[in-house]
Amino acid sequence: MVAKESTTDVLIIGAGPAGLMTATWLARAGIPFRIIDKRSAKIFAGQADGLECRTLEVFRSFGIDGPWNESNHMQEVCFWEPDGKGGLFRSARIPDTVKGISRFQQCVLHQGRIESFFLDKISSSSQGKAEVERGILPLSIDIDEKLAASDSEDVYPVTVVLKNLDEEEAQPDQYGGKIANGLFRQFQGDQDKYYSSEGNSAANTEILRAKYVVGCDGAHSWVRKQLGIEMEGESTDYVWGVLDAVPLTNFPDIRHRCAIHSAEHGSIMVIPREHGVVRFYIQLQETPRDPDSKTESEKEAGAEATTKGRVDRSRITPEFILGAAQKIFEPYTIDVRDIRWYTAYQIGQRVSPSWHKNNRVFIAGDACHTHSPKAGQGMNTSMMDTYNLGWKLAWVCKGLADPKILETYEDERRQNAYDLINFDHKLSRLFSGKPHLPGQDDDGVSLEEFRKVFEKGKAFASGCIIDYNPSCLEIKPAEFGKKDEFGDLKYVNPLASKITIGTRFDSAQVLSQSEATPHHLADAMPSDGRFRIVYFAGDFKNNAALTEKMNVLGEYLSSESSFIRKYTPSGAKIDSLIEVLTVHASPRTSVEWFEFPQSLRPKDDCQREDYWKIFVDDDSHHNGHGHAYEKYGIDPSVGAFVVVRPDGYVATVAPLGKEGIEQIAKYFDGFVKVPTKPAEKVAEVDMYGLAEVSLPVLAL
Amino acid sequence: MVAKESTTDVLIIGAGPAGLMTATWLARAGIPFRIIDKRSAKIFAGQADGLECRTLEVFRSFGIDGPWNESNHMQEVCFWEPDGKGGLFRSARIPDTVKGISRFQQCVLHQGRIESFFLDKISSSSQGKAEVERGILPLSIDIDEKLAASDSEDVYPVTVVLKNLDEEEAQPDQYGGKIANGLFRQFQGDQDKYYSSEGNSAANTEILRAKYVVGCDGAHSWVRKQLGIEMEGESTDYVWGVLDAVPLTNFPDIRHRCAIHSAEHGSIMVIPREHGVVRFYIQLQETPRDPDSKTESEKEAGAEATTKGRVDRSRITPEFILGAAQKIFEPYTIDVRDIRWYTAYQIGQRVSPSWHKNNRVFIAGDACHTHSPKAGQGMNTSMMDTYNLGWKLAWVCKGLADPKILETYEDERRQNAYDLINFDHKLSRLFSGKPHLPGQDDDGVSLEEFRKVFEKGKAFASGCIIDYNPSCLEIKPAEFGKKDEFGDLKYVNPLASKITIGTRFDSAQVLSQSEATPHHLADAMPSDGRFRIVYFAGDFKNNAALTEKMNVLGEYLSSESSFIRKYTPSGAKIDSLIEVLTVHASPRTSVEWFEFPQSLRPKDDCQREDYWKIFVDDDSHHNGHGHAYEKYGIDPSVGAFVVVRPDGYVATVAPLGKEGIEQIAKYFDGFVKVPTKPAEKVAEVDMYGLAEVSLPVLAL
Repeated sequence: MVAKESTTDVLIIGAGPAGLMTATWLARAGIPFRIIDKRSAKIFAGQADGLECRTLEVFRSFGIDGPWNESNHMQEVCFWEPDGKGGLFRSARIPDTVKGISRFQQCVLHQGRIESFFLDKISSSSQGKAEVERGILPLSIDIDEKLAASDSEDVYPVTVVLKNLDEEEAQPDQYGGKIANGLFRQFQGDQDKYYSSEGNSAANTEILRAKYVVGCDGAHSWVRKQLGIEMEGESTDYVWGVLDAVPLTNFPDIRHRCAIHSAEHGSIMVIPREHGVVRFYIQLQETPRDPDSKTESEKEAGAEATTKGRVDRSRITPEFILGAAQKIFEPYTIDVRDIRWYTAYQIGQRVSPSWHKNNRVFIAGDACHTHSPKAGQGMNTSMMDTYNLGWKLAWVCKGLADPKILETYEDERRQNAYDLINFDHKLSRLFSGKPHLPGQDDDGVSLEEFRKVFEKGKAFASGCIIDYNPSCLEIKPAEFGKKDEFGDLKYVNPLASKITIGTRFDSAQVLSQSEATPHHLADAMPSDGRFRIVYFAGDFKNNAALTEKMNVLGEYLSSESSFIRKYTPSGAKIDSLIEVLTVHASPRTSVEWFEFPQSLRPKDDCQREDYWKIFVDDDSHHNGHGHAYEKYGIDPSVGAFVVVRPDGYVATVAPLGKEGIEQIAKYFDGFVKVPTKPAEKVAEVDMYGLAEVSLPVLAL
Repeated sequence: MVAKESTTDVLIIGAGPAGLMTATWLARAGIPFRIIDKRSAKIFAGQADGLECRTLEVFRSFGIDGPWNESNHMQEVCFWEPDGKGGLFRSARIPDTVKGISRFQQCVLHQGRIESFFLDKISSSSQGKAEVERGILPLSIDIDEKLAASDSEDVYPVTVVLKNLDEEEAQPDQYGGKIANGLFRQFQGDQDKYYSSEGNSAANTEILRAKYVVGCDGAHSWVRKQLGIEMEGESTDYVWGVLDAVPLTNFPDIRHRCAIHSAEHGSIMVIPREHGVVRFYIQLQETPRDPDSKTESEKEAGAEATTKGRVDRSRITPEFILGAAQKIFEPYTIDVRDIRWYTAYQIGQRVSPSWHKNNRVFIAGDACHTHSPKAGQGMNTSMMDTYNLGWKLAWVCKGLADPKILETYEDERRQNAYDLINFDHKLSRLFSGKPHLPGQDDDGVSLEEFRKVFEKGKAFASGCIIDYNPSCLEIKPAEFGKKDEFGDLKYVNPLASKITIGTRFDSAQVLSQSEATPHHLADAMPSDGRFRIVYFAGDFKNNAALTEKMNVLGEYLSSESSFIRKYTPSGAKIDSLIEVLTVHASPRTSVEWFEFPQSLRPKDDCQREDYWKIFVDDDSHHNGHGHAYEKYGIDPSVGAFVVVRPDGYVATVAPLGKEGIEQIAKYFDGFVKVPTKPAEKVAEVDMYGLAEVSLPVLAL
C-alpha cells in the first residue's frame, strides 16, 4: 500500500482564529487550499473573547456580522482603587473605545462562537467545498529550496506528510473535572500527546505538496519548531487566573469593564460578556507550585517549598480562583454560578524573530507572539496577521502578482508584534504590581500612571492606527514624511491631509449617486481580493478643471493603454482586479447619471450597467451627512486618488489628472504581472444581476 | 381503516406571509399549532416585495433582521410627467419614507426570501419542532357552537378534515413557459384544481380538532367561503402588468422609485429591487380579452370582439408587458434581461364584511382585503392582521386571558382595511387615469393632485400611524380625545403629550443603566408575548416627590397585593407576563445601581440579578443622545407610566404613584384571568444567564 499523494495551493495548519482567517481569504478568492487541525473538535467555551474595532471592520468586510450583533459592546472602563480605609472607590470612568476611531467599538464574545461564524463563511464562500479537516496531524515538512525560488505560480515546493489520527488520539486532554478549562493548553501545550502517537502507516498518512504552508498552530507551534525558530522574550512570576461565570455580587459596576487594584491582595479586570456572563482576570498572589520545581536560588537556600517554581496546574480550581477574587473585591462580596470556563496563565512577552522560511512556509498568530491576554490583543493580532497574508498568497497563487509581495508579510506584522509586547510589558507590570497608596512611603506602582498608560494604549489596542512600512505595496515619498507627537514618522499627502499612508482606509458615509442610499464607503470595498482606486472627483459640476480631469480619466480607462486593461486577463470583467470607485462632492441632484463617463459605470458582457460604483458626499434623507471629504482632508475643489489594498490599507495618494494616473500605473507596475492566459470561465450561479458578488472575484 | 384523529390549539391554513406571521407568534409563545398549505412548494420568485416601516419594526421585534439587511432601501420617489413636447420630465423628487416616522425605511425584497426568514424563525423558536406541512388540503370545517361559547381554554370546538395530497395534486399550476409568473393565481385562483381532486380515503385524511382556526388562504380563500362570507367592493377595467427584471435603459432614474405618467400610453411605477433587479408596474392599455366573455352591453350592441370582458391571461407574456412599457418610457429606451417573474392584475378594491365566525375561526390577509399592489400594502397589511391576532390567541389558548380579547381582532383590523381600500381607490384612479396636460382642455387627472395624494398617503402606508379603537385592550378616556388636522379623534394623555394611545409605541434610543450601552427601547421589548409597563421615573435624583414615587412602586411590586403577582402563575418568573421597564431621566453617573428598588431589577430563583430592565435618557459615548423624554412628550419632573401591549401598541398612559398603579391594575383586571394552576416547569436549555430569552415566555 502506498500513501495517498495530493497537491493544494495552500496548506493551513491549525484552525484557530489565525488559520480560519487565512482560510476565509482563500475561500473568498477562489484559491484551492486545505486547513487541518489535530484536535477532533472545535472549542465551545472560553479562550479569547475581546474583539477590537479593526477586527470588526475586517469581519464586516467579509460580511461576517454575527460577532458584532451577538457580542457585548463595552462602553466604559471604571477604575477602582484602595481608599486607604480598607475599602475601594471608583477613581475614574473613561469610554472603553476611543471616540470616533472606528464605526465599531470594542466588544466581547467567546472564541468558539467567533470561530463558528468563520466556519459558516468559509463554507458559503467556497460553495460548501472547503471545510476544516479535524484530527489530522502534520508529521514532517520539507521545502525544496530550488523549487521554492521559482517565480512560477505552478510549482509545489513544500511537502508535508499528514497523519489521520483516530478518535482517541485526536481528543484534546484537559485537567480538572467537568468544567471546561484551558489549563492543559496554557501550561504544557498539547504537542507531546499528539506526537507520541504511534502506528504511522501508508493507510493513515498522506503526502501533500503545497505551494505555500501557513502555520497557525499556536504558542507551542510545531511548524515554528520545524523551521528551527526560537521565540525571544521573557516571562515573569505574575500568575493570573481567568473565570467566566455569572456573578452574584453587590459590586455596583459588575456590568462595566473594570480595572480594580486592591491594597494588598492583587488586581482584577472585569470584562462583562454576552448573556450575563462576566469574565474575570484575577491576580493569583499565592499559586500552588510543583514542589519538585524549586528555583536554583531556592535550592541553594535549602528551601522546603518553592514559591517561584513551576505552577502546579492540577491544583488551580475555580474555587481557588474565586477565593482570590473575593479578597480583592473586599469589602464587596462576590459569588458566581454558571461557570463556563477557567484557566490560569503566567505573564510573559515573547516574539518570534523570523516569521517564514523561504517565503514558502509562514507562521502566524500565537506561533509568532505571546503576551498577557487582558488587553484583548492575542486573538485580534493573530487574525490580523493572516488578514495581511491571505490576499497576498491569493494574488501570488493565481499568478497575478510577483512573489516578492510575500516578503512584506513579516516586515509589516513583526513590527506590530514588537509594539504589542512593549505595550503589554508596561501595562501588565503596572497592573500586577502592588499599588502605591497616597500618604504611604512605599515603592508601589502609581495608579495614575496605570490609568494614563491604559488610556494611551486604547488607540493602539483598537488596531486602527497600525502603520505599515514602505515597500512595493506602500508608497511613502520622503517629502510627505513628518514626525507625529510620539516621534513616529507618518506619511501624509496634503491632497488627503487626514489620511496616513500605510494605515487602514477609514470609512465615511457617502450616498450612492444612482439610488441616494447611504453607504459606508468601506462597505463598497469588501474583502474580495481587489485593489481599489477611490477617485475623489471633487465638486466637478462647479469646476471646469475637475470636469476636464474626469474626462481625461474616463478616456484613459476606456483606452487600450489603461493599466487596468493591461493587468486584467482577457475575458474577465474589467473590475476583477482593480476597481475604480468614484466619490464626488457636487450636490447629488445637480448631476444626472449619464454625465459620468461610461468607464466609471462600466457595463458587463450582457450590457448590464453597474449602478453602484459612483458615490456622492451629500446629505441623506434619513441618516444625516457623512462629510467624507472633510473626514479625509480632501479639498472638494482639488480632489485626489486614494489607492487602497485588498486588505483596506492605503497604498498611495495621488493627484487627479494625467500625473496621478501615471503614479498609480507605476505603483501597480511594481508588482502586478501581465497575464499570460485568459480568464477561466466561471459558471454564473445567479443571474440576479450586478450586485451579486458571491463568486470569488480572483477566480478568473 | 379509520382516519387519523388529532388535536392542536391552533390550525393555520395557508403558509403565506399572514399564516407565517401567525405561526411565528405561536412558536415564540410556546403554543401548540399546525400550519398547512395545499401547495407543494414555497414560492421562489415574484409576488409581493414591499416592506413598510412598521413591518420592519415588527420583524426586528422577533429578531428577524434578514429582510432589512438584504433588501433594497428605497430613498426617493421621482415623479415623471409629459413635457407637452412628446417627452417626459422629472417634475419632483420626494423622500420615499416620511422623515422620522420610524427607525426603518420602506424597502423591497421578494416575498419568497421574506418567507424563508419566517421559516427559519419558526423553526428556531420551536426548537425545530414546528414546520409548515405542505401538500395538505382542508376538506371541511365544522364548529361545535356550544363548545365554541365555552370560556375554558381546554375545549376543541373546531373540526377540520385534512387531506394529504399526492405530489401531482399538490403541484401549483401556472401559465406560460419557463418563466415564473403569477397569472394563474391572479386571475383564476387555484382552488378548482385542488378541490377537484378525488380519492379521499381514511388512508390520506385526518380529522383534526382545534381550539382555533386561522384562514390565511388568500384572495380566493376556501375558509372564507366555508364561513359563507362574501367580499364587498368593486373592480375596475384597469389592467396592469408586473415585470421583475434587470433593465437595460437610458432612463436616468431607473434605480429610484418612479411614478411615470405618459401623455397617451398609460403609467408606470418603477421599484428598484435587490441584486440589480427592478420591478415595473406597467399599465396595459390594450389587454387581450377572451372573445367569449363579452359584456352585456357589448352583446346587446352586437360587438364582434370584447374590450371589457375577461382578460385572456394566456396571451399576457413578458414581451407583451415590456412592449407596453417601452411606449410609456418614450423617448427613453428600455429593454430587460434576467426576467425573474411577471404577472398581470385587474384593479379592484374589496373587503370582507366579517372576519371570523364565533371568534373561533378567523380569516386574515388577502382573504379579508384585496386591492392594487403598487402602494406595497397587501403583504404588509396581511402580516399585521395576524401580528394583531397571534398574541391574543396565545394568551387565550394558555388560559391567561378572557376569550373576549379575540373580539378586538376584527374591530381593530377591519377599520384599517377600509382605510386602505379608500386610499388605494383614490390613488389608483389618479395613477391609471389619462393625465391632464397644461394648456389642454381635457378631463384628465391632475398630476399635481396625484403627487399630493401620494405624499399624503406615505404616512398611512408606512403602517406607523394605525390607531386602534377603544376596547378592553385600549383605554381611551373621553377627556383625552381631540380631533387632529384630518378630523380624526386622537387620544393623548398630557403626561405623554407625543404618544397617541392606540398607536404603536415608537422607539427611542436610551442607555442601559448598568452598562451604558445604547439600545433602542423597542429592542428591550421584543415580541415574546409579554405586556410591558414602561416606568418613566423622571429625574428622580433631583426630585424628592419622584424618589418617593419610586419607593411606592418598588414596595407595591414586591408586595403580595401586586397585580403582577396576582396574575403570574406560581413558579413562573415574576416578569413572565407583565414586565416593568424603567427609563429614568437623571444623569446616568449620578445614580448608583443599588439605589433602584430590588423589584425593578428582580432576581431569579438562582439569585441572578436582572441588569437589563433599567434605562436612562442620557448621552452615549459613541451614539449621541436619544432624547427619549422629549420624543414621548414626557416631562422629566413629572414622569408617567406607559402600558404597551405584546404587539407594541400603547394601551394606556397613567400617572406615577398610587393612582396610576391602580389605573393599570384596573386595566389588567379587565381581561387577565387569575391563574388556576402553577407554571409548568420548562427545562432550561442554556444556563448562560439572564439575557437569554429564547425560551417561550408564555410557556409557563
